[in-house]
Formats: sequence, C-alpha cells, structure tokens
Amino acid sequence: MRMYDIILKKRNGGELTKEEIDFVVNGYTKGEIPDYQMSALLMAIYFQKMNKRETADLTMAMVNSGEVVDLSAIEGIKVDKHSTGGVGDTTTLVLGPMVAAAGAPVAKMSGRGLGHTGGTLDKLESISGLSIEMPKEKFIENVNKVKLAVAGQTANLAPADKKLYALRDVTATVDNISLIASSIMSKKIAAGADAIVLDVKTGAGAFMKTLDDSFALAKEMVDIGTNVGRNTVAIVSDMDEPLGLAVGNALEVKEAIDTLKGHGPKDLYELCMTLGSYMLILANKADTVEKARKILEETITSGSALNKFKEFVVAQGGNPDVIDNPELLPTAKNVIEYKAKKSGYINKIVAIDVGIAALVLGAGRETKESEVDLAVGIVLNKKVGDYVNEGETLCYIHVNDMSKLADCERRLENAFEIVEEKVEQRPLIFGVVTKDGIQRF
Amino acid sequence: MRMYDIILKKRNGGELTKEEIDFVVNGYTKGEIPDYQMSALLMAIYFQKMNKRETADLTMAMVNSGEVVDLSAIEGIKVDKHSTGGVGDTTTLVLGPMVAAAGAPVAKMSGRGLGHTGGTLDKLESISGLSIEMPKEKFIENVNKVKLAVAGQTANLAPADKKLYALRDVTATVDNISLIASSIMSKKIAAGADAIVLDVKTGAGAFMKTLDDSFALAKEMVDIGTNVGRNTVAIVSDMDEPLGLAVGNALEVKEAIDTLKGHGPKDLYELCMTLGSYMLILANKADTVEKARKILEETITSGSALNKFKEFVVAQGGNPDVIDNPELLPTAKNVIEYKAKKSGYINKIVAIDVGIAALVLGAGRETKESEVDLAVGIVLNKKVGDYVNEGETLCYIHVNDMSKLADCERRLENAFEIVEEKVEQRPLIFGVVTKDGIQRF
Repeated sequence: MRMYDIILKKRNGGELTKEEIDFVVNGYTKGEIPDYQMSALLMAIYFQKMNKRETADLTMAMVNSGEVVDLSAIEGIKVDKHSTGGVGDTTTLVLGPMVAAAGAPVAKMSGRGLGHTGGTLDKLESISGLSIEMPKEKFIENVNKVKLAVAGQTANLAPADKKLYALRDVTATVDNISLIASSIMSKKIAAGADAIVLDVKTGAGAFMKTLDDSFALAKEMVDIGTNVGRNTVAIVSDMDEPLGLAVGNALEVKEAIDTLKGHGPKDLYELCMTLGSYMLILANKADTVEKARKILEETITSGSALNKFKEFVVAQGGNPDVIDNPELLPTAKNVIEYKAKKSGYINKIVAIDVGIAALVLGAGRETKESEVDLAVGIVLNKKVGDYVNEGETLCYIHVNDMSKLADCERRLENAFEIVEEKVEQRPLIFGVVTKDGIQRF
Repeated sequence: MRMYDIILKKRNGGELTKEEIDFVVNGYTKGEIPDYQMSALLMAIYFQKMNKRETADLTMAMVNSGEVVDLSAIEGIKVDKHSTGGVGDTTTLVLGPMVAAAGAPVAKMSGRGLGHTGGTLDKLESISGLSIEMPKEKFIENVNKVKLAVAGQTANLAPADKKLYALRDVTATVDNISLIASSIMSKKIAAGADAIVLDVKTGAGAFMKTLDDSFALAKEMVDIGTNVGRNTVAIVSDMDEPLGLAVGNALEVKEAIDTLKGHGPKDLYELCMTLGSYMLILANKADTVEKARKILEETITSGSALNKFKEFVVAQGGNPDVIDNPELLPTAKNVIEYKAKKSGYINKIVAIDVGIAALVLGAGRETKESEVDLAVGIVLNKKVGDYVNEGETLCYIHVNDMSKLADCERRLENAFEIVEEKVEQRPLIFGVVTKDGIQRF
C-alpha cells in the first residue's frame, strides 16, 4: 500500500477502504507518513468529502492509535457528555451530580484546553483542596462508590487525532465535517464511553454559526456513534448569547451550585434538564424524556444532587464548605458595574465578545503556558429580550488587575446591542438528533 | 502575510495576488514555508485552479527563484524549442542545424533527465570527443560564431520549480494544467529564451493522452508566454506511435544525420519543417509559414544544414567524420530482427511500450544514477498503416547484453497491433496555438 495511491484515489473522488484508512492513521502516528503527504490528503478530503463508513473507520483508527481507557470495572452504562464549546458553559458541573444522584455512573475525563475560561478541571480547582490527579484504580473506585469522579485526561488518548489536528490547524483543513466529527468522537470513545450525549452549540459564540451546519455536525457524530456501536444522541442548543449568567471559573462554580440548589439561571437549568434526560435514557435509567426529567427534577428538589456534589468534592479531597458558603471560592478584588449607555431592549449579547472580555481579565488561556486567574470573569445582569434603563447594570466585571479593565470594557461595548423595539428571544434548544433521525423543534 | 491565509484563500476559490504568489515561491524556495503547507496549497490549486494571471505570476516567481541566463550578448532573437516529451523524438538534433543555417541563433541548454532514452546531451555524447561542458563565455562565443551551441543546464535554473515538482510528484498534485505549464515555461524563460516554440505531444506515448487536454496545455503555455512578454507558439503533434524510426541515443543521432541529408523518416522531417518554420517566424527570419518552410527546405537541399551540424560538432570538440561515416558512432554488438507473428495492417505501435523496450536494453535512465548505453535501442522497420507479412521484420533490436533481449521482446509484443482491415494513418500535426487562438487542422 502506498500513501501516494491513497491521496490520488481520494483526490479523484474514490472511497477509501478500512485498510487504507488504518494504513494512513497508523503510518502518520508512527511518523512513517510525512506531514506533506498527510496535508495533501486532508485537502483532498476537504474537497471530496468522506462518507459515513470512511468517517467511522477514521474515528476508530484514531481511537486505536493510542490508549483506550477501560472502564469495564465500573458497573452500569457509562454515558459521557460532550459540548462543542461555547461561552459560560457550566453544564458539566450541574449534570454530573444530577445524573449521578439519579443512579447513572459519571466517569468524566476532562482537559484544560484553550478558551475564554478554563476547562472543567480549572473550574473544579477553584474548590480548595480538590484534586483531579489520581491513579486509575482510585478513579474507578470513586465512580463505583460516589457514582461521580472527574480526572485529568491521559496524554496518550487518540494521539493520531492530536497530531492530525495540529496539522489541520496550519493547513486550512479544519472545517470539514467528517474531520471535525471524527476528532471529537475519537476522544470520547477512547476515554471509555459506552454512550455519548452531545451538545452541539450553534450561533455567534459557537464553532458552527448556522443551524444547518450545526445539525449536519450533530448528524455526522450520531452516525459515527451508531456505526461504531456507541449509542449517541445530540442536541443542538443556542450559543448566540452566553449560557447562564457567569463567565469565569469560580464564578461558574458558584453558578453551578446555585443551579443545584434550584435557583440557577433558567437557560442553564433547562439545558441541563434536556442533556441529563438523554444521559439517563442512554444509561437505561429512564425510557422517556418525560420520566427522565421527572427523576432529574427530584434530584434538585430533594437536594440529592447537591449532596452528591458535596460527596464528590469530599471524595476528591476538596473543601465541601464552599457549597454552603460559596464566598469561600476565590474572589476578585474588584467588582465593577458595566452600565447601559441607553434604554431599550437587549437584542444581542454576542457570546464570543463576552468570552474575550473574560479572557482579557485572565479567566482563560491564550497559550498553553498561560496561568488562569480563577477569580475573575463577567456576570451578566441582563439577558437577550430583557428591558434595560440607561445607567442600569448590564453586567458585573470581576477583576483583579485593574489595568485590564479598559480593554475588557472595550470588548463588552461590542457585545451588547440595545434596540427600541421589543425583542423575540431565541429558542434555547433547536432540536435533537438520534440514530432515528433529526427532530427540529 | 501568512501562508495559512493564502491556503485558505485558494481553498475557498479566491484569486492569489502577485505578492502572495511571490511570498509562497520565495518562502518555499528558502525553506521558510514547510512542505506540508505547500502540499496543502498545491492540492487546493488542483481543485480550485489558477487563472491566467496567477499562472503567469507563478511562472515568473519560479524564474526569479534562481539564476536567469543572460543571452543578451548573442545577436538576434533567441528562439528556444521545447517538447513535452515522447519516444524517439530526434527533432532538436535536426532543428538546431537547420534553423542555425537559416541565420537564427540557437543557444540550447539541455538536461539529461530520466526517460526511455537519454536527453539531447546524452545523444550528442555518442559523437566521440564532443563536449557539452563549457564556460558561459565560450557558449555565447560559439552561438555568435556558429549560430548553434548546446550546453548542459546550470543547476540553479528555476530551483523553486525543481523543489515544487519533487513535492507534486509524491502528493498526487502533478496533473494540474497551470502547474504543468508554469513548470515548463519557467525553465525555458530562465534559460534565456526571447521566444519559445512548443511541441505538445498527444496520444498514448505522451503525457497528455487526449487532444483536448493537449490543446488546453498548449493554450495555457502560449498564454503564459504572452503574459510575460515571450512570444510563444505551440503545435500539437502525434505521439501515439514513436516519431521517426529510431529509439536510442546513437541510433537517433544517425537518424538526425540522415534527415539532414534529406533522406530521414517522413514524419520526423515534416515535424521539423513545421517547428522550424515557427522558430524562423519568431526569430523574424520569415513572415509566413510558407516562406519559412522554403528557407528550411533549401538548408537541406543545399547541404547547408548538414554543414552547420559539422561546424557545430567541430566547435564543441567532436569528431566530424561521424557525419559522413555514421558507422563511427557507438554500435551494438547484436542486431536482432523482431518479426511479425501474422500478416495484416499495422493498427498501433504503442510509443510507450517501444520506449520501455528501449529502456530495458539500457538506452535510458531508470534512476538518476543509471548509466546510459549509447549504442542500444530499437529501429522500426514499419510504421502505423503499413502492411506486413507474417515473418517480416517489424523492427530491429540493437542489443549489447543479450540477457535483456527476452524482456525487450516481451515489451514489443504489447507494442504492435496488427489487424486485417486497412488502417487510416493518424495525422502528424493536429493544430497550432498562437496568442491569437487555437487553429485545429
């Protein structure tokens, strides 16, 4: 088998066999296939696409390029959740305790990643004492005992994807739906998931800007899951304005705690209910969305989800007092009100701009080496559709280094759009994709 | 300027500016742009194409990537000829003396290259004593004195093209018409040509198999020449069967001498008349094809072309006696008749198969390091359209190492197709492309 022939075949619109895809992924991971041939193939794939079978084979080839986490020692169906990324997405911190309290095991491996705020790991580390480093045995023991554990990702998960992504990033071959979908799915599968619930974000703050693209990506990932024997459901949810109110690490932890206590932002609560319901269904803990939702609502009203969160914090060495006293979380030195310059209805809160406003305060990482400031961030006081009076607070800026305030405010200026006419709210959830098809709401 | 943005622009169908193309070619030649970005761009160009302006800019960027030979010390318009390559193409050895005898300067830089037989340099070296190594001053002096000189190509001609071609060759990005055309034209322009006559081969033995592709390539190259101020004419000629009768180095020199004496193969003679006529027109030595042809015919009948060849051989240190006594050329130990297995009309002599039959005898190079055997090759005794009786000789195999004969004969078996019905001969010349358009015959 020769890489040249494989490039030529794809360039000419051919369908690659499983053997050819394995040859490419293995050879590339081992360094036997050079970058320049791989990038030519990626560009040919960009133009000629890959079909469902090729995409599934690519996914599994990337899974098998490294370690596959064995979670078989954990009882029950391990359902993982993945979001395609947005601004102020605190769902993992709410979902974990809720779903665990409902009896489904949650064995979460998270990364730190680059972004406007830190990853789930950074957020959790704002709880003093909490550690996400533990041996695999301890991780499995915790899941079996508490039903919930969060650990850092092993470095050797789908190394082919890591290498390929770095190459795609510099050769303008990122935005092909098969490549995006297989990249996401390979990491989830390698992390040991039996079933997967995907939250595909859509809108200005998301990777996929249009509804059609978002549903296409959702469908592609569900098809991969179906093809490789992982029950997969995707929902498409809004990321035009930030989710919830808080954008920042400790601020989002506080928001998650509020939500577990039953008084979190409505959109965050609703999204968690929807995602959680599908997680329970895939974990065989409920057979309809309605029944699943009832179970989840009870974990909130009964306090069992909040207790589960406490249990989890204790199991990972953290201080559970933060749950009753969130002021124990890292706090910024200053909280500055950012006020409306005119009266009217809020037409837009551009998620990406709010994200960057938080990033410039130090809430996220610009490079792998950046230090995250866990205390800082933005807390919205208004959401799209709300009426605001001139001089009223649009959001609160939690800031430590006051020299960064001006830049932050400049970013926020772009974020808010206020108009005279009443504004329709965008739906929160646009639809669900299962192996049976696409259901748009 | 960033290579990433240039890849993205071309991938999305954009037109690259001159500055962007210069950035790419300079950066790649210097090693500042890595192969993996270049191959992604090449694949994007394969799919999105380049327009005339981009192709012309790419050509000149490659010209300027290395040395540009300065032939201004040579009087008159320097017309170069280039063939896209075929089997048994002896035109350069005939055209040089004819055109020089007609008063137009011929300053030829040739390569050795890979192929079924050696390049023009190898062929000339079958004349004992003849050297193609000389300082630039001597080369120019020879052209001014004799009107004809042939020298080896400097290594630093269009290095960008050399590097790009090597990359295209392993990434399935060779067959894009803009890339092929700019590759050929950049080398001709860098070699100092004021005007260029192109012989675009078409058919089974050519790179371009179909007439439409061949005319498209011809047009592309003429457009480049026009765009960069080099008067360019292309003819499209047949390469379904080999040109002339001889395929092999010394064998082709002998055939060239025969043709200069007025008794060469008809197709070789005709093609040289056509190519030579356009060379004289571009060199301002004639204003119509008819007048040019008359001048060239006279160089044959008067013996002035043959004398010019002698003069050239002497000037480059070769033994001129080979011209009157071609048996002084290297001769193979054995000449084996290859006979027809049945009677009928010859329907096909597949050029590529005859070329490979000569290659296996040692007439060409399989790798850069191969030694060429100047004596060996194939001489056809029949051409397409001829009638042949069973047992009659189809061709003569000139062979030194008899262990290679069986392989050679096996290749020839594929080359000849004999049928019962009378066969129409294919035209030799299919048309001419000038800056005014395409004229198909």
